[in-house]
Amino acid sequence: MTVRTIDIAVIGGGPAGLTAGLYAARGGAETVIFERQACGGQIITTEQVENYPAFPEGVGGAELGELMTAQTLAQGAEIALFTEVTAIVPADGGFLLETNDAPMHARAVIVATGAVPSKLGIPGEAEFTGRGVSWCATCDGAFYRDKVVAVIGGGDAALEEAMFLTKFATKVYLVHRRHEFRAAQVIVDRLARHEKVEPVLGNVPVEILGDPETGKVCGLVLRDVADGSERTLVLDGVFEFVGTTPISELLSDGLVSTDERGYIRTDARGATGVPGLFAAGDVTESTLKQVVTAAGAGATAGFSALNYLETL
Amino acid sequence: MTVRTIDIAVIGGGPAGLTAGLYAARGGAETVIFERQACGGQIITTEQVENYPAFPEGVGGAELGELMTAQTLAQGAEIALFTEVTAIVPADGGFLLETNDAPMHARAVIVATGAVPSKLGIPGEAEFTGRGVSWCATCDGAFYRDKVVAVIGGGDAALEEAMFLTKFATKVYLVHRRHEFRAAQVIVDRLARHEKVEPVLGNVPVEILGDPETGKVCGLVLRDVADGSERTLVLDGVFEFVGTTPISELLSDGLVSTDERGYIRTDARGATGVPGLFAAGDVTESTLKQVVTAAGAGATAGFSALNYLETL
Repeated sequence: MTVRTIDIAVIGGGPAGLTAGLYAARGGAETVIFERQACGGQIITTEQVENYPAFPEGVGGAELGELMTAQTLAQGAEIALFTEVTAIVPADGGFLLETNDAPMHARAVIVATGAVPSKLGIPGEAEFTGRGVSWCATCDGAFYRDKVVAVIGGGDAALEEAMFLTKFATKVYLVHRRHEFRAAQVIVDRLARHEKVEPVLGNVPVEILGDPETGKVCGLVLRDVADGSERTLVLDGVFEFVGTTPISELLSDGLVSTDERGYIRTDARGATGVPGLFAAGDVTESTLKQVVTAAGAGATAGFSALNYLETL
Repeated sequence: MTVRTIDIAVIGGGPAGLTAGLYAARGGAETVIFERQACGGQIITTEQVENYPAFPEGVGGAELGELMTAQTLAQGAEIALFTEVTAIVPADGGFLLETNDAPMHARAVIVATGAVPSKLGIPGEAEFTGRGVSWCATCDGAFYRDKVVAVIGGGDAALEEAMFLTKFATKVYLVHRRHEFRAAQVIVDRLARHEKVEPVLGNVPVEILGDPETGKVCGLVLRDVADGSERTLVLDGVFEFVGTTPISELLSDGLVSTDERGYIRTDARGATGVPGLFAAGDVTESTLKQVVTAAGAGATAGFSALNYLETL
């Protein structure tokens, strides 16, 4: 069997991967972006992105993903959709990529696999996933019209999604373990004025309760971090926004250095330390995980990969 | 005299400064962006930007600057136009900014002053600046309708501007000291097919000649890097795109560390080493100087400055 050889493989089609692919293809490299689901990354389940520069009125997350994808294709990159890379094996002065489709050989690889929302890991969470437990307000919010929900988390994502859920729910509890939110002040202020939102600070979720008859979520047990007392909120849905976990199992064999949470370590050029292997975006140990920082890091990794090819 | 105190001062209104200001203001900080000319940075003299993600058909440089400016204002940042910061003096747990207007005190400062096109430093250049010598094809290209021009340089900017000048000029010499261009391959290929463009590789400009009667450029003396022979191109305009020089004189007093060319050294968070003083964009020692990388670095610096304020 002949294995196709390309210049640059980009693993992941979010903002980092799409921008890496844009720069790689513009630089004349034969570039394939592997995306196991749909392009756009985490933003495609985001209602509105207000902080990606040059969109003064904001832009829908799905639309932003589509615009980036169209541009990357226009600049000559190829996108292998629904194609999951299952192993990266150093081989023949490059890397053999095993996939759920045909394998491919790439002279350089950019890992931009991103991150996924973290789970709470409490009783009831796994049992009621999809039956009241969700990580995507945009996807599932409409199912909670005239219902009561809780949002867990205190960062930008949690508060933005809480605001979005007020379109449907009659009440949105906003549960956060600390005594103040970490989100941007404009969002905190906006939520503070909203009559449907009730902040529940200094509390952690300990169990998600289900109704045995319907098989759906009916309550959330909280523990007060100060005195350890517990109480139960009666509700219909729990939306979790408690940070992210990098999608870096592909590199869990020790090929590259990661931090204790699994984020890939890179230098300022996006280099992992393994010649020809670069990383960018939410899967890396970056300071700020945003669309624009991922895109910027993707551009840099694409440029670095092109420079690397010149040295071969 | 009472000096106004703000949270975060951003010096420079290009993509890095505008994005830093966007993030700072969204984070609830009282934020002022100082811009000595017009917002948008170097892109406002760029005809078309094809590699800022999410604009599949490209976007005019001036338009991109306007979109970014509008968004940063909408998110609550203030922009002090035509205001040049002339000194940054550590004072009172922050920084006193001297300007050509009233001074201001800021608790944190983000330097995003950018870079300017470098000069060749050859005879005739200073004398004929504005009379045939230019650093901006978008600004001056239309003056060269049916004339002959030379573009100096081999990077993306040089080749993009050369392509733009073919709209007006009858002939565009493309002079580069090396024997191949550094620009992205798609641009190199596009130019190679253009009948008006004549590459002159392996040559360096040594003197710009003027017509004593008109006081305007009439020729360009080149030296062949291989054999040292000289020849003169008869032409009407010389456009220089030979890299950039950081605008970092404001920090030349040793307050922060710079490299030998004057680019500011920062860590991955945009910190300069001086508490409360951050830098982002083309003025820093970054790998790749592009709109999207500047914007990404601006977001990170804005976020880092907000975090710093929390520690005060």
